Amino acid sequence: MQERKQTIEIVHFMGDTTLYPHVSVDCVVFGFTGEKLKILLLTRTGVSDEGVYNDMKLPGSVIYENEDLDDAAYRVLHELTGIKNIYLQQFHSFGSPGRTQNPRDKVWLENAIHIKIGRIVTVGYVALIKIGQKLQAISNQYEAKWCDIDEIGILAFDHNLIVSKALEYVRSKLVEDPIGLYELLPKRFTEAELRNLHEIIFGQKVDIRNFHKKFTSLPYIVPLNEKQQNVAHRAARFYRFDKIIYNQLYR
Amino acid sequence: MQERKQTIEIVHFMGDTTLYPHVSVDCVVFGFTGEKLKILLLTRTGVSDEGVYNDMKLPGSVIYENEDLDDAAYRVLHELTGIKNIYLQQFHSFGSPGRTQNPRDKVWLENAIHIKIGRIVTVGYVALIKIGQKLQAISNQYEAKWCDIDEIGILAFDHNLIVSKALEYVRSKLVEDPIGLYELLPKRFTEAELRNLHEIIFGQKVDIRNFHKKFTSLPYIVPLNEKQQNVAHRAARFYRFDKIIYNQLYR
Repeated sequence: MQERKQTIEIVHFMGDTTLYPHVSVDCVVFGFTGEKLKILLLTRTGVSDEGVYNDMKLPGSVIYENEDLDDAAYRVLHELTGIKNIYLQQFHSFGSPGRTQNPRDKVWLENAIHIKIGRIVTVGYVALIKIGQKLQAISNQYEAKWCDIDEIGILAFDHNLIVSKALEYVRSKLVEDPIGLYELLPKRFTEAELRNLHEIIFGQKVDIRNFHKKFTSLPYIVPLNEKQQNVAHRAARFYRFDKIIYNQLYR
Repeated sequence: MQERKQTIEIVHFMGDTTLYPHVSVDCVVFGFTGEKLKILLLTRTGVSDEGVYNDMKLPGSVIYENEDLDDAAYRVLHELTGIKNIYLQQFHSFGSPGRTQNPRDKVWLENAIHIKIGRIVTVGYVALIKIGQKLQAISNQYEAKWCDIDEIGILAFDHNLIVSKALEYVRSKLVEDPIGLYELLPKRFTEAELRNLHEIIFGQKVDIRNFHKKFTSLPYIVPLNEKQQNVAHRAARFYRFDKIIYNQLYR
């Protein structure tokens, strides 16, 4: 892993770096509980004129000196989750000069990366992960929390905009190629879980009978000899996604 | 329009700007002749160890101090073509540290923008325009040429990569929403022109009879009382795209 090199630059530039756009990556990490779509957010603690505050932000980082964009995003996610193989896609870059205008964000950022910052162009990434996976933060700078997509409140910088663009991207991407749905589902999932995910992602109620017809006709959804345990309603069967069959059909 | 402000920075930093990533936009401008898909490229003249050379590059620019990414892309296109209303979409950012590694590119860039450059992260844009439109370059720094997409040779920087990613993007975008096809076609077009465009964009031969059936059933394709003139083969009818009908159906 590369070392953080930005601090060296302070000596050279003595604060004049405000003229330059810096480049960062920000990651919108989606997870699905079976019922709700969540994103992974970090708590940010800072000091403003009104005292100490806590709010939330997307995981992200300024790119290192010799680092490609994708590598920076993988680094952030690896440090955050300990996971190495992550479904990750660049989706949009955000460069409004106003995105670091809030004094709170500016102060926080300058404390965090030890450079005077004028503006930052950030490259947005979407990651889809199985929410049940144990996350093992490699770096203690991250205190991550799964937040319900409908209840995220006001985030730092333009991160609300980034989240809404990310959701739009995921929708259109999964219409085109639904494989990402199975990145979000657990390894064993029920028909109702896939149906819920469909409804949330595409923002439309699904007809249960039509869905069932389609579900049972998909050759890459393989029924398992296992059912739910200890549930109040009738125990539902588990299924798994077969990537090999899927790729044979569509790749 | 904003002034170019980068030159000021030389005084402040005396060449140490190599540590910073700069940010630029690059535009892949597609046009369609009725038979061939073309992109708009600029001739670049530079001096290398082997003497003066000419090659081609995408139109682009470093972003100005207070400029958003989309604004930078619109500025480049406006200066290049004189056109103000352009179908323009950001599609991908490119940030490999190696993308400015070729000494030829490095020297050219430093001469062009008068800053010592370490690396540049560039935000890629796709524009679709009607090739018949008169292009009126506002700035004389651009000498643009329509080049056949299959014959573009080796471009500056990583611009071949950007072009191939742009083509991929256009393909998937137009599957989802074909409205972009009509940005590329002239105001009056023939069925064969739309069919050719389909074949080129989606990379597949189209069955003429099936295509005709579909073509004549689309309510937003309106036949005109005009036919081709002075053609060797049977004169074909012209059609126009009706955006209002299209939007009523799909938006």
